[in-house]
Amino acid sequence: MSLPTPESGAVRALVFDVFGTVVDWRGSIIREGEAQSAAKGWRVDWPAFADAWRAGYQPAMQRVMQAAASGEPAWTKLDALHRGILDTLLPRFGLDRLSEPERERLNLVWHRLDPWPDAVAGLTRLKARFPIATLSNGNVSLLVDMARHARLPWDCVLSAELFRKYKPDPAVYRGAADLLGVAPNELLMVAAHPSDLAAAKRAGLKTAYVDRPLERGPDGPREDSAGQRFDWVASDFVDLAAQLGA
Amino acid sequence: MSLPTPESGAVRALVFDVFGTVVDWRGSIIREGEAQSAAKGWRVDWPAFADAWRAGYQPAMQRVMQAAASGEPAWTKLDALHRGILDTLLPRFGLDRLSEPERERLNLVWHRLDPWPDAVAGLTRLKARFPIATLSNGNVSLLVDMARHARLPWDCVLSAELFRKYKPDPAVYRGAADLLGVAPNELLMVAAHPSDLAAAKRAGLKTAYVDRPLERGPDGPREDSAGQRFDWVASDFVDLAAQLGA
Repeated sequence: MSLPTPESGAVRALVFDVFGTVVDWRGSIIREGEAQSAAKGWRVDWPAFADAWRAGYQPAMQRVMQAAASGEPAWTKLDALHRGILDTLLPRFGLDRLSEPERERLNLVWHRLDPWPDAVAGLTRLKARFPIATLSNGNVSLLVDMARHARLPWDCVLSAELFRKYKPDPAVYRGAADLLGVAPNELLMVAAHPSDLAAAKRAGLKTAYVDRPLERGPDGPREDSAGQRFDWVASDFVDLAAQLGA
Repeated sequence: MSLPTPESGAVRALVFDVFGTVVDWRGSIIREGEAQSAAKGWRVDWPAFADAWRAGYQPAMQRVMQAAASGEPAWTKLDALHRGILDTLLPRFGLDRLSEPERERLNLVWHRLDPWPDAVAGLTRLKARFPIATLSNGNVSLLVDMARHARLPWDCVLSAELFRKYKPDPAVYRGAADLLGVAPNELLMVAAHPSDLAAAKRAGLKTAYVDRPLERGPDGPREDSAGQRFDWVASDFVDLAAQLGA
């Protein structure tokens, strides 16, 4: 963590994608939603709701990045993007019966996502050997709340919010290396999404792909990784720790 | 941590000054220096060296802030400021006999500072009730290394580096509140330095003064706090936790 030594290229720190890689966003939203609608006696298709909410995420971020590219200085936190998408979905899922405090509480479900079963054990092992940090499009307060909820032992919470650019902008990956005091090729990006890793690789980082086959449900779509090369491929975080000697 | 509710003003998160408030920079530098010079058979006045190194800190930061104010876009990490001051001190203390790797290792002693005896226990109690974060002029990698060395259980590492302004610039205090998702008057700044707390208060934060009488040694100078009001005054972090009901 001290001086960058670009020629060496040994891994000196790890950064993690969060949604889908560390936490099970879909299962968590479905569980919390079902508990709430059961208490109210409502029928809601929570799996479809979770998928629709997440589907609005990429277009919403792209609108922020396009506005920035056209010279608007605005930045929008992911919490606000989530709320904008949520508001468009409420009528379709019969959720416009929720009060404003209930809508706001539902929006913050992203702060209370549960980890995949191996996540805490794997991160704890990795942390014994390497500094570990988030590198997520989630805003800082979202990631802090999530870490407290899920007991994720981060050394440091890094977010797109710090750079006012969303992944896959290379400034996010390179900015993380700079803040952690390592060269880009000494930083290992861990993610379940080939597109995130491809962008990290273009920015000079090392890459570890972790398979999360249930991210979009048992029969959900999966991002194609055919033809991509990663520096490591692991079945979960405990496997990654073993491969890295942690 | 969810929505700012400026009218309430209850404390929702804590940020901490670090050098002198959480860790004993002077004692740590003296201890590491003495171990090194004993191994070499050198005589070095480490207490005077530590004081001189720290004395260069405020002027070095002011130069960075003045350069920024005059339109230069540069930012300099505290690690680099420390190194610049160190280089000027080496001949005076007979340390120009150190090799370049030894100099660089000495410069990074700021990454390896030891906590005050109550710090970890107090932070652990406070963390059970509130999100806790650094708010230091130290760069992010320095604070991450220090937290790993001293086992400081931060939820989040916030640094002047994220805002490219050094404390006491109000952008640092307000930026921390924004990142943590709370209003300025819901954020409690904890520090052993009245000047830091006065700046936090001007930025709208709540303040807690923690007494660290040994920061500059048993007979060292102490910053005057006469006439200043703080929202809390505590003898150490365990006392602060008790006062905050944590």
